[in-house]
Amino acid sequence: MRAVDLIRKKRDSGELSREEIDFLVSGYTRGEIPDYQMAAWLMAVWIRGMSRSELTALTEVMLSSGEVLNHSEIPGKKVDKHSTGGVGDKTSLILAPIVAAGGLTVPMISGRGLGHTGGTLDKLEAIPGFNVNLSLQDFRRVLRECGMGLIGQTAEIAPADKKIYALRDATSTVENIGLICGSIMSKKLAEGIDALVLDVKTGSGAFMKKEEDSVRLAEVMVETGKRMGKKVVALITDMDQPLGRMAGHSNEVIESIEVLNGRGPADLRELSLELSAWMFYLGERTKSVEEGRRLAETMIATGKAKEKLRQGIRLQGGDERVIDEPQRLPKARFQAKVASSTSGYITGTHCEEFGIALAMLGGGREKKEDKIDHGVGLEFHKRIGDHVEKGEPLVTIHYNSDAKLAEAKSLIAGSYQVGENAPQGKRPLVRRILGA
Amino acid sequence: MRAVDLIRKKRDSGELSREEIDFLVSGYTRGEIPDYQMAAWLMAVWIRGMSRSELTALTEVMLSSGEVLNHSEIPGKKVDKHSTGGVGDKTSLILAPIVAAGGLTVPMISGRGLGHTGGTLDKLEAIPGFNVNLSLQDFRRVLRECGMGLIGQTAEIAPADKKIYALRDATSTVENIGLICGSIMSKKLAEGIDALVLDVKTGSGAFMKKEEDSVRLAEVMVETGKRMGKKVVALITDMDQPLGRMAGHSNEVIESIEVLNGRGPADLRELSLELSAWMFYLGERTKSVEEGRRLAETMIATGKAKEKLRQGIRLQGGDERVIDEPQRLPKARFQAKVASSTSGYITGTHCEEFGIALAMLGGGREKKEDKIDHGVGLEFHKRIGDHVEKGEPLVTIHYNSDAKLAEAKSLIAGSYQVGENAPQGKRPLVRRILGA
Repeated sequence: MRAVDLIRKKRDSGELSREEIDFLVSGYTRGEIPDYQMAAWLMAVWIRGMSRSELTALTEVMLSSGEVLNHSEIPGKKVDKHSTGGVGDKTSLILAPIVAAGGLTVPMISGRGLGHTGGTLDKLEAIPGFNVNLSLQDFRRVLRECGMGLIGQTAEIAPADKKIYALRDATSTVENIGLICGSIMSKKLAEGIDALVLDVKTGSGAFMKKEEDSVRLAEVMVETGKRMGKKVVALITDMDQPLGRMAGHSNEVIESIEVLNGRGPADLRELSLELSAWMFYLGERTKSVEEGRRLAETMIATGKAKEKLRQGIRLQGGDERVIDEPQRLPKARFQAKVASSTSGYITGTHCEEFGIALAMLGGGREKKEDKIDHGVGLEFHKRIGDHVEKGEPLVTIHYNSDAKLAEAKSLIAGSYQVGENAPQGKRPLVRRILGA
Repeated sequence: MRAVDLIRKKRDSGELSREEIDFLVSGYTRGEIPDYQMAAWLMAVWIRGMSRSELTALTEVMLSSGEVLNHSEIPGKKVDKHSTGGVGDKTSLILAPIVAAGGLTVPMISGRGLGHTGGTLDKLEAIPGFNVNLSLQDFRRVLRECGMGLIGQTAEIAPADKKIYALRDATSTVENIGLICGSIMSKKLAEGIDALVLDVKTGSGAFMKKEEDSVRLAEVMVETGKRMGKKVVALITDMDQPLGRMAGHSNEVIESIEVLNGRGPADLRELSLELSAWMFYLGERTKSVEEGRRLAETMIATGKAKEKLRQGIRLQGGDERVIDEPQRLPKARFQAKVASSTSGYITGTHCEEFGIALAMLGGGREKKEDKIDHGVGLEFHKRIGDHVEKGEPLVTIHYNSDAKLAEAKSLIAGSYQVGENAPQGKRPLVRRILGA
């Protein structure tokens, strides 16, 4: 077998066999196939696409390029959730303790912020002392002890994905449904889970702006997971505006604790409950999604979920006092308000731009090596459908430096669409459910 | 400007500006853009194609990546011919001396055998002592002295093409009309010529098997050359069977001298005259192609072309005695005949396979570093339309080693299609002329 022939085959819209995909991906991971051949193949894949069986093969090969965790010594089902990313999307911090408190195990391997979206690992690191770089041994210990663990991708997990992802980033081959699916599913299935709930975002703050693209991605991920013997459902959820009222790392930790305290914004609470409910159901903890939802509500109402988060923070070296004393989290020194320049109804947002503005303020990275300022953030006062008066604040900016404040302000001001009439029709938070 | 954005633009079928193409190609040639980004861009170009103005920009940028020769100290026009390659295609050895004897200058930078096709440089090296690696200074001296020079691509000529070509070979991005055009035209225009005659082969022994593909390639090359201020015509010529009766390096030198002696096979003589005629006409040596043809015939009839070849060989260090004593060329020790297994008419050939069989016998390279056996060759006894009796020889193989003889024999035997009836219709050698 020669790489050059396999590149040609995909270039000419051919379908590669499992052996051929294995030859390419394993050879590349071992350093036997050079970057430039992989780059040419990735571009051919990006343009020509992959069949479902190619996709399954790619996912399996990437999965088996590293260690696949086995938690069989821990009784009960292991479940996880994965979100394709958005602005203010902090449900992992809420549902992991809910589901762990409810009796399932949540071995969550998360990522960092990417582009305009935030990352769970970065949010956790807003908590003083929190260590997301546990060894696999420590990860297992934490899981055994409290039922939830939140770490980053280790060198042992799907090294093929790690290497290919870096190359995709440099060769404009990121936004492809097949390659995204392979990357996500190979990492998630390496966690050693029985079931996975996918939160596939759609709208102006998501990577997939169009619902049909989100649905296609969801479909291939669900199918790939099922082919590999896992229970998988995907919820297509709204990302035309930020989730909850808060964006920024400390801000999002605080808002998550609010939800675990039985408060917090309705949309965030609703989505966290819905995702938790599906996790309980797929993890066979409850007989129905409805029952799962009631169990999740109970975990909040009884304070058990909050106590689970406290335990999880402690076990991963973090300062658990942040649960009751949020002032222990890094906080920006200054606040500035962005006021509406006109009166009317909010009809939509360019949600991605909130994420870009947050990154400008220091709450995101331009380069991989950049440090994140966990204290900066955005507080959203208006949602789509709300009425706003001219001069009324739309957003409060929490910032530490004037450097890019003006630029961030004007980006935020331009991100709201204000019209004379209230937008018609319902805006369901969960647009569709696939794979159920 | 960032390479990753330009890759994305082409991936999404966008049109790159001259500045953007320059950024990529010059950056790559200087080593600032890595192989893997160029590979991704090349694959995107292969699949998405290039516009005519992108193509002109690519050619110009590759051309200006190196030295562009200037022969203004030599009076008169400089002309050249380029063939896209075939089996038995040896016209360069014939027309260069014809045209130089007729008073024009032919600064010919040629290539080596590629795939199943032979290369002019390799054929010249069958002549003992012949040096194709002249310095540019020596090349100019030879040109001044005798009007023709035949060398290989130097490090100074189109280094961008050299580097990109190697990458294309390893990434299955070779057979693309735009990239082929850029590669050929950047090298040919670097020769410092006023006019170029393109011999674009079509048929089973050509890289372009279908006439419409050959025509498209010819069109873009003609247009690119004209945009750059050169006179260019393209002849689409038949390569459904070998040109002439001989393939193999010594064999082809001998057959070329035969034509210069006023003998040789009709098809080879005809095409050599036709190409020479166009070179005379485009080089403004004659007022018409017809007049050019008469001049070419005169150069043969008077022996002036043969004497020019003798002078050219001498000036490039070769043993000029081969002109009259062909036994001084390397010759294979053994001969074997491939006989027809049936009686009938030759209706067609898988011409490419003759080239592959020749390479198997040692007359081609599998790897770049391989040495060529100049003595081996094939002698074709039948042409399309000829009648053949069962047991009558189709081909005589000139070989030195039994190693792959059987394999070559069966490949050759299977390359002839024999039918009951003679094929109908004319088989014009020159199918179309473009750009005239």
